[in-house]
Amino acid sequence: MIEKSWTLDANRFFDPDPAQRRAARALYDSVAGLPLVCPHGHVDPRLFSDPDYQFGSPSELLIIPDHYVTRMLYSQGIPMEALGVPRLDGGAVETDHRKIWQVFADNFQLFRGTPSGVWLATELVELFGVREKLNGDTAQAIYDQIAACLAQPEFRPRALFDRFNIEVLCTTDAATDTLEHHQAIRASGWHGVVRPTFRPDAVVNLDAAGWRANIDRLSEVSGVDVVSYSTFIEALQQRRDFFKEMGATATDHASVTAFAAHLTDAEAKALFARALTGDATAYDARRFTAHMLMEMARMSIDDGLVMQLHVGSVRNHNEVIYTRFGPDKGCDIPQSSDFVHGLHSLLGAFGNDPRLTLILFTLDETTYARELAPLAGHYPALRLGPPWWFHDSLNGIARYLDQVTETAGLQNMSGFNDDTRAYPSIPARHDLWRRTCANWVAGLQVRGVVDEEDAQAMIFDLAYGLAKRAYRLV
Amino acid sequence: MIEKSWTLDANRFFDPDPAQRRAARALYDSVAGLPLVCPHGHVDPRLFSDPDYQFGSPSELLIIPDHYVTRMLYSQGIPMEALGVPRLDGGAVETDHRKIWQVFADNFQLFRGTPSGVWLATELVELFGVREKLNGDTAQAIYDQIAACLAQPEFRPRALFDRFNIEVLCTTDAATDTLEHHQAIRASGWHGVVRPTFRPDAVVNLDAAGWRANIDRLSEVSGVDVVSYSTFIEALQQRRDFFKEMGATATDHASVTAFAAHLTDAEAKALFARALTGDATAYDARRFTAHMLMEMARMSIDDGLVMQLHVGSVRNHNEVIYTRFGPDKGCDIPQSSDFVHGLHSLLGAFGNDPRLTLILFTLDETTYARELAPLAGHYPALRLGPPWWFHDSLNGIARYLDQVTETAGLQNMSGFNDDTRAYPSIPARHDLWRRTCANWVAGLQVRGVVDEEDAQAMIFDLAYGLAKRAYRLV
Amino acid sequence: MIEKSWTLDANRFFDPDPAQRRAARALYDSVAGLPLVCPHGHVDPRLFSDPDYQFGSPSELLIIPDHYVTRMLYSQGIPMEALGVPRLDGGAVETDHRKIWQVFADNFQLFRGTPSGVWLATELVELFGVREKLNGDTAQAIYDQIAACLAQPEFRPRALFDRFNIEVLCTTDAATDTLEHHQAIRASGWHGVVRPTFRPDAVVNLDAAGWRANIDRLSEVSGVDVVSYSTFIEALQQRRDFFKEMGATATDHASVTAFAAHLTDAEAKALFARALTGDATAYDARRFTAHMLMEMARMSIDDGLVMQLHVGSVRNHNEVIYTRFGPDKGCDIPQSSDFVHGLHSLLGAFGNDPRLTLILFTLDETTYARELAPLAGHYPALRLGPPWWFHDSLNGIARYLDQVTETAGLQNMSGFNDDTRAYPSIPARHDLWRRTCANWVAGLQVRGVVDEEDAQAMIFDLAYGLAKRAYRLV
Repeated sequence: MIEKSWTLDANRFFDPDPAQRRAARALYDSVAGLPLVCPHGHVDPRLFSDPDYQFGSPSELLIIPDHYVTRMLYSQGIPMEALGVPRLDGGAVETDHRKIWQVFADNFQLFRGTPSGVWLATELVELFGVREKLNGDTAQAIYDQIAACLAQPEFRPRALFDRFNIEVLCTTDAATDTLEHHQAIRASGWHGVVRPTFRPDAVVNLDAAGWRANIDRLSEVSGVDVVSYSTFIEALQQRRDFFKEMGATATDHASVTAFAAHLTDAEAKALFARALTGDATAYDARRFTAHMLMEMARMSIDDGLVMQLHVGSVRNHNEVIYTRFGPDKGCDIPQSSDFVHGLHSLLGAFGNDPRLTLILFTLDETTYARELAPLAGHYPALRLGPPWWFHDSLNGIARYLDQVTETAGLQNMSGFNDDTRAYPSIPARHDLWRRTCANWVAGLQVRGVVDEEDAQAMIFDLAYGLAKRAYRLV
Repeated sequence: MIEKSWTLDANRFFDPDPAQRRAARALYDSVAGLPLVCPHGHVDPRLFSDPDYQFGSPSELLIIPDHYVTRMLYSQGIPMEALGVPRLDGGAVETDHRKIWQVFADNFQLFRGTPSGVWLATELVELFGVREKLNGDTAQAIYDQIAACLAQPEFRPRALFDRFNIEVLCTTDAATDTLEHHQAIRASGWHGVVRPTFRPDAVVNLDAAGWRANIDRLSEVSGVDVVSYSTFIEALQQRRDFFKEMGATATDHASVTAFAAHLTDAEAKALFARALTGDATAYDARRFTAHMLMEMARMSIDDGLVMQLHVGSVRNHNEVIYTRFGPDKGCDIPQSSDFVHGLHSLLGAFGNDPRLTLILFTLDETTYARELAPLAGHYPALRLGPPWWFHDSLNGIARYLDQVTETAGLQNMSGFNDDTRAYPSIPARHDLWRRTCANWVAGLQVRGVVDEEDAQAMIFDLAYGLAKRAYRLV
Repeated sequence: MIEKSWTLDANRFFDPDPAQRRAARALYDSVAGLPLVCPHGHVDPRLFSDPDYQFGSPSELLIIPDHYVTRMLYSQGIPMEALGVPRLDGGAVETDHRKIWQVFADNFQLFRGTPSGVWLATELVELFGVREKLNGDTAQAIYDQIAACLAQPEFRPRALFDRFNIEVLCTTDAATDTLEHHQAIRASGWHGVVRPTFRPDAVVNLDAAGWRANIDRLSEVSGVDVVSYSTFIEALQQRRDFFKEMGATATDHASVTAFAAHLTDAEAKALFARALTGDATAYDARRFTAHMLMEMARMSIDDGLVMQLHVGSVRNHNEVIYTRFGPDKGCDIPQSSDFVHGLHSLLGAFGNDPRLTLILFTLDETTYARELAPLAGHYPALRLGPPWWFHDSLNGIARYLDQVTETAGLQNMSGFNDDTRAYPSIPARHDLWRRTCANWVAGLQVRGVVDEEDAQAMIFDLAYGLAKRAYRLV
């Protein structure tokens, strides 16, 4: 039997029209070699603090921790246990990583036409040199091939950092994190640039799991005894200063809605006191989150940290899975969002201040043209984050560019972020973005909307320049 | 005067780019001959119970009962009466079917670029062999030609069933229906497969017209005296069993919103008792519909009937027309929907159970990428119905595939259903779907997102496989 | 240094596929020479009442009054003062128009891929004969070139009216306007057709700035002493009659939501009395606006004025800018809209009356396919306005046509309106519409959805016929 070789189309994601394809190819070629700027993501910094860090099995690397992958398999009736996802109660799950890989390969067709499918194929072919298409028959040979790669020093995270041509990689870290891995990276003298990002959700959202314990931890790491609203703010400022000292240029905030509004000082104090004694209500929690977004914007104006706001994910929609396996298991579902009224107070207070950069992320694409582009096309403080999560895809990127650019212009965007836990997928994600953007700009060029000079400037900014400028990484 | 011949472009609905067109054509050719699977629609089963059933005039067949057609003519100021639509009060309407046809033909240009226009053209050319474009001048000759066809035995419904190459056709039937026509079809020994579908809206929605009489009818046909909530449930179970015995594989439910939530047993009993005495409020009706969706999901897990849920149509928006002509007259207007919160309880209770298949239909396209694809890409019980009603169109199908596939994948879809009362339009509707899907898959192929092998598997599933599997017709 | 010549692609905005491009070009060529019908816009009639009206400097013409331009520059941190936008408090702003032009030119790249960028480029090249691309280096030479043009009689508004080939231009005028400039135009014997449009928002919306003074002014100009609800209605009818006498064929209404509902006569009287004494609440204002939409529809049935309704703009979202510079400064942000429930009462009362034409405009594109197309595809009184404001763009027009036509058909649309204050941009805006429509119709043609004859009829209607018919300008 003759095996066809598994290859990636050199012109993948480009329009089939020869004129547009030619233009897209030229634009892509001009940026394909640029370093990767990764201003927002969830890679674990310990991959870089230990120079000898080694990945586990192919299943540990590519399946078990990746909720994009496990949720799709689960949607077709494959139990999470069969995929080796650990149960909170310690109940039995599959431990044979070859079996897990086999289930994945048997069902790889589920990912046809999905960004996960594209990223995985790109990783297998380009990173691990796989030459046969992944399916039930080729599963075990490919497992062996990946495992052999992972055993080599060239596949350690620091080596891949260079191979991936990463210029800077920002992690996302709890406000209470001591950043010991970032400290170790610095201390090691390694040349790679890895920066932390300040994410205070777990202490700011009163309904976060373990909030009270998180506050104790905050006291501990900040050296500020958090016994009141004012000491809370003081502790947060201490952490922001520490993060900034450690290289952070940004903060990150997640909220179900875009609602931001000041409490009076008296309200904030009383509410926080109730929270400390365990008496805060769900309504208190919502109002406090809204208030703290105002506070964080105010602090950003002072300390210059870029503020990211991720809006609209209903976390842990499937309580059965959440109870059994915990958060981040593919059960987070978007809801519709309202930025126009939600952010009215915050933008009124801080939106005209060019010292603030507030980068907005949405899971509700209907807000692109209706709300976000008009807002970002007016308020100096606003920038729009790239298409997020489900929308970081071929069609999602095209919809974003089509719906945002005409009103906001490119300079009110913030380029790309891969937003990933899956370190080996980073080049595949940036490549999909760069190709899709090149094709989109080429579409403007062959339609005479922009000329070649403009097209060239636009693809450079989309691929590289915007992210650096928006995140103050220059 | 030389008449141009009216023909259909052999490559219609395919992208003009030669590479994509070639790929689309090859994919389409590979599925064009597959039998039609029609798992959801509104064809009257009496078309098949009487082997000698004959259609009426061309206007009776193609205009008067088709609210897609009459509402467009009405929107341009043509009275419903002029189209022969019967008035509830028995008032005079046009009875000369040639005149009705003439009005339709005079205004056929209104349907340019609409799916109705495409379906009608396809029927006229492919089914009735019309060779001149329909307009005011050609109206009467074409009327004659269609009438002559309809007089022939080849145009009786059973003959067309074979000509259309229908593998299975599912009707939609009230819970109180005795399915006598289905019984007659079976008894006749005819080879065509026609299955009923259990639709209990008229007894489940307390605000349905004639609800109290419907309950009496339910008692009668089920043999269960419905005097309480528990006997109501018992009667429904009897009907589900009967439908299943008669070949049903699915139920169907319509609801203005996606809201589903359990009542306590005591609440359900008290509420139903109020309804029986005519004391239920509008709020009761909403809560009872929400509760019964839970019950229906529970029963589906027991008896294996696939559950369909059609959400978001505000019925009879135009009360003037409703009062004069009754329901289903083109006055149903979509509203926005929220599946994320609406279905939270139902999915929590039953969404993880692979014995359930719940197929969701929306009229709010904003839910495709934001809610439905993430939900279907996670919960094992969920499948997404094809683009429904207004969205069953060239652009509607493309938007659906573009917005759903990347997150949910094809295997969480349920193929196509024609959803039509207009029996002769069935091949045209399936052909539009198959061509549009072929073009869409070809788009992935020429952009290097999937290879030829994957493309072939995808078009087969879209055209045939998914519908059979989702509706358990295999 | 060799300067490249700045030219516009003769096939701009057409698909790159050769077949579609050829078809688009042929369709465009067939309508490019048709006169411009401008049924809705904000050009100042005094441009035409004074035969010798001269525009000011290039910056006064193209930058300072154009909030599409200033808001984009402001969004990137350029103060409004630096653009010469007058402050309400009379504070200092830049008065050197060459400096303002330089800032604009230095930042012209912000408009890449935006409709403002396209319009401006078209104006500079086609109207002013600019041959070098605008940037910081070429700024002053281009300023000189435009200034030289503006000094010539060929660039006076009446001369441009002919050069632009405008068949009719409708302005938008307050209900209290005496239309003295329209009177002067008529008295002058000039051949240009300029019609007023009746816009009563400032007297109908109780929360309009200066409402009480506006009512006094209404009394004065109408000759009806407005001391009660009934005299208010009487005065409005007087103004409608006057506007109609002066050539108006339409009214225009702006509302944050689409909500319309009758008050009882007693409620209307009491509420209006409260408003006169300054005692109306915000809730009163909302209900009164809703009521007056009903009244305006009723009056339109009587007097035949076409009713326009612009829904969904949250005006003056940025209170800092509003307070400093006043309204119409690029701070108006769209919100989501609900036409299905909002217009239910109005359509029930008047929607079936073909004497009414109600043209709806939305800033919420999600309503196109979900609500507006189904409503317009049913109610005889409804027509849909073209894509409005942010959505009057290449992608916005394509989305509109794709999402509306399949359900509503072209005949339920109302063609194009440029909706502009920027008189010299009118040809560029119509040209963008005509090219984009030609390309869209060509897309249907090369996909075999419509034939050449239908395509030709469709582009004629889109470019010219629909606007004339919808606005009763025939």
